[in-house]
Amino acid sequence: MTNRDEVDYVSGRTRVFGIVGHPIEQVRSPEMFTAEFRRRGRDAILVPMHVLPGDFDAILPPLLRMQNLGGLVFTIPYKARACVLAQVLGEQAQVVGAINALVKSADGRWQAEIFDGLGCVEAFRRRAIPFAAQRVMLLGAGGAGSAIAVAVAHQRPASLCIFDVDAGRATALAAKVARAHPDVAVTAGAATTTEIDILLNASPVGMLGDARLPLQVDTLPRGLVVFDAIVKPERTPLLALAEGCGCTTVQGREMMRGQISRMVDFFLA
Amino acid sequence: MTNRDEVDYVSGRTRVFGIVGHPIEQVRSPEMFTAEFRRRGRDAILVPMHVLPGDFDAILPPLLRMQNLGGLVFTIPYKARACVLAQVLGEQAQVVGAINALVKSADGRWQAEIFDGLGCVEAFRRRAIPFAAQRVMLLGAGGAGSAIAVAVAHQRPASLCIFDVDAGRATALAAKVARAHPDVAVTAGAATTTEIDILLNASPVGMLGDARLPLQVDTLPRGLVVFDAIVKPERTPLLALAEGCGCTTVQGREMMRGQISRMVDFFLA
Repeated sequence: MTNRDEVDYVSGRTRVFGIVGHPIEQVRSPEMFTAEFRRRGRDAILVPMHVLPGDFDAILPPLLRMQNLGGLVFTIPYKARACVLAQVLGEQAQVVGAINALVKSADGRWQAEIFDGLGCVEAFRRRAIPFAAQRVMLLGAGGAGSAIAVAVAHQRPASLCIFDVDAGRATALAAKVARAHPDVAVTAGAATTTEIDILLNASPVGMLGDARLPLQVDTLPRGLVVFDAIVKPERTPLLALAEGCGCTTVQGREMMRGQISRMVDFFLA
Repeated sequence: MTNRDEVDYVSGRTRVFGIVGHPIEQVRSPEMFTAEFRRRGRDAILVPMHVLPGDFDAILPPLLRMQNLGGLVFTIPYKARACVLAQVLGEQAQVVGAINALVKSADGRWQAEIFDGLGCVEAFRRRAIPFAAQRVMLLGAGGAGSAIAVAVAHQRPASLCIFDVDAGRATALAAKVARAHPDVAVTAGAATTTEIDILLNASPVGMLGDARLPLQVDTLPRGLVVFDAIVKPERTPLLALAEGCGCTTVQGREMMRGQISRMVDFFLA
């Protein structure tokens, strides 16, 4: 058998992971998780699994009985819906009410967690920028914002203020996070850059061709740390302004790398 | 994003195929089919799917609703059981009563065929050795033997004689093939090397460390074509004897290559 007859990256012994979403073609998890498995010397692969919303309940529960399925990643529109598949729900997933990773643990039970926020925290940890005792302003209380709020609150900042164009959504998230972290001053309020140390954008403003800023400012304080969860473009209008003002910046891509690393830890534990 | 962050062989656009079996670790289809997809420039991968017998009916029918699933290969112990998944059963699968490939056709229906025998015929075709008008002796009337008998009969040999240590099994297969091919002289009978042109071994005798021959002979006629379906070892005791007697030999590995090629034609049609 010549090399030409075989590839070297999949065999009968390969552990299979999947990303479940609708649509699926745009996801980047297959190439990125599989690369991380390889870097760690594990014979595993993550493949796309395109499941229509009307098929989710029929396909997913039985699929978990496939013996060599190591775990699943969930993306739009299934992060909340996938909670029902977990027998053990992680601390952050319980507060957020959504998961993006499901893994079969050693005892055979399926455990789940959401890593969107943990990826942001991991990106800051890798840059040695602490959240503890800092005053944090978060823009956006949607799916990503919720997960980031919960993960950041877990780091015991001095305060966490949440803004959303939908004020009710910001208030609801602040109340939920405050209940889980009574030791942190969590509030909903206006978007501001004064009397804060870290500015986090988890809103979609600035994505792709969008030239807008997620808050109305002309300049930013030099000492501010500015993070944007947006991955494309790497340099959002907000990060461009922050760089121009001499701020420290953290990119969405760093969060994505941090998240993949934490999720692979979870998958291979 | 550096190359190190990604692999190049799987993405959100990759079409997924699977091999379903129990056990699964020993299968070679993942590396071989995936290599064949690549040779043909297709973005597709075949992964192992380990399904326990008690889970087959729960997992398989819903799995077929996964939108980017291109098709499935079935191996031990599911070749007969998988027939229920097909809405259109191929000509050979109907006679054999088993399938090893299931594909979603353009009209959305799942069609199935068995390629074990077609792989043998393809191996002979590649070597330009015809079955038509030849006298064929087949040893073994099990799963592989049944598929080979049906595929070879389809090539209109002058005669096809089937031997099995279980005489009833040989008789039943001969009757089944004769019904499907009334124009071919199909019989069950003793293993012989006289008055035949082609000798096919589809019994397990000679596999791995087994030093036996599948029929009791000391020598073989020089003009005989001798085929062994066994893949390991490449040179079975039967093929070694045939080579020593100056016969033309065809290896199991050639059948495997022929089969994969025909199955990928079926998957990508």
